[in-house]
Amino acid sequence: MGTKQNVSRAVIQRLPRYYRHLSALRAQGETRISSRMLAEMLGLTASQIRQDFNCFGGFGQQGYGYSIDKLCEGLEEIMGLRCAHTAVLVGVGNLGRALLKNFNFESNGFQLLCAFDSDRTVVGSAVGDVTVRDVSELYPYVDQHKPDIAVLTVPHACAPALAQGLVRHGVRGLWNFTGEDPAIEALCVPVENVHFSDSLMTLCYQVNQFEEQIHSQP
Amino acid sequence: MGTKQNVSRAVIQRLPRYYRHLSALRAQGETRISSRMLAEMLGLTASQIRQDFNCFGGFGQQGYGYSIDKLCEGLEEIMGLRCAHTAVLVGVGNLGRALLKNFNFESNGFQLLCAFDSDRTVVGSAVGDVTVRDVSELYPYVDQHKPDIAVLTVPHACAPALAQGLVRHGVRGLWNFTGEDPAIEALCVPVENVHFSDSLMTLCYQVNQFEEQIHSQP
Repeated sequence: MGTKQNVSRAVIQRLPRYYRHLSALRAQGETRISSRMLAEMLGLTASQIRQDFNCFGGFGQQGYGYSIDKLCEGLEEIMGLRCAHTAVLVGVGNLGRALLKNFNFESNGFQLLCAFDSDRTVVGSAVGDVTVRDVSELYPYVDQHKPDIAVLTVPHACAPALAQGLVRHGVRGLWNFTGEDPAIEALCVPVENVHFSDSLMTLCYQVNQFEEQIHSQP
Repeated sequence: MGTKQNVSRAVIQRLPRYYRHLSALRAQGETRISSRMLAEMLGLTASQIRQDFNCFGGFGQQGYGYSIDKLCEGLEEIMGLRCAHTAVLVGVGNLGRALLKNFNFESNGFQLLCAFDSDRTVVGSAVGDVTVRDVSELYPYVDQHKPDIAVLTVPHACAPALAQGLVRHGVRGLWNFTGEDPAIEALCVPVENVHFSDSLMTLCYQVNQFEEQIHSQP
């Protein structure tokens, strides 16, 4: 399967959604799906889906639908989910703890190696499958174990210096829950920001529209 | 300002991003911005930004740039951030606690009224600005206080029945952190799913691309 360079961010962001829906279908025992059916599930057009897949060389013969297995495998390969990347998490507050306990890093392409915090009541304890170490051990650990990415679940104010330090020590990607920060965006490694507010504002818009529809009905 | 019906989801999802960047500029004392500059900040094209704004009647005169204040106010109005919607949160585990303690509901258009959990060691305690009540009081509370939305931070297995109950009791939107569930999507109220995995898979893709670039350099 060929991969084009310069695939747009919009396409890249749709890949996990495709994968999520297709994995669910696969788990239900489904084997084939048309672009039309997939489009309906995802609220997209069939043409957009075909275009997206064509960015990666396409996945099937038109008219026969797609093999769900092949699509899943292709998406896993494109996104690199089987590369066994490694990650460390910094900041074992409530959010860090929620991720450590409930988030499946492995099925998303990452092995979580270790977590770090400065709180002495937390350091040394096991959370989820990892042990929490003192944050003073972070950079020596990164030097030795060379994790691919770091998950930032520290307070906003600590984030820029921490991110800079991690990148200086060789980390090549940041999963950033601390709020967008230009200092982090400027670090020349991939950064994925998680903004809860974007999602809630989108819901706010939808709730307003929903209410207007209700009120405009006779 | 006019609002078109049937604005695409892609446009709607860009609105919070515009608002986030523009609010930051406003906080820095900036007053005007061109679509070109805004496009650069957001990694979009100027033409796309103008098209997006035109969905809502536009916000300025071409050639003069946009007033940042007016854009922020317009976006607040479009998304309904000033409507003082109300919310309850169900599930005070680590993630629920992280939201209660650190997330600013008010600046995202919602007043958080109350939180609910079934764990007796949590019920009665104050977390962030609200008190945690026993989940047995949830539906009577919803009947009486009529919150607009519910935040679902319960385990996946509890989510469908809970969501159905909430909608039956009049809740008109769900902010769903429990993992996508078709039973929740089918409830005919707006649902906004937060999928951490989408974001991590996107990062996984980017890290792979980044590594390929490094390796392909002479």
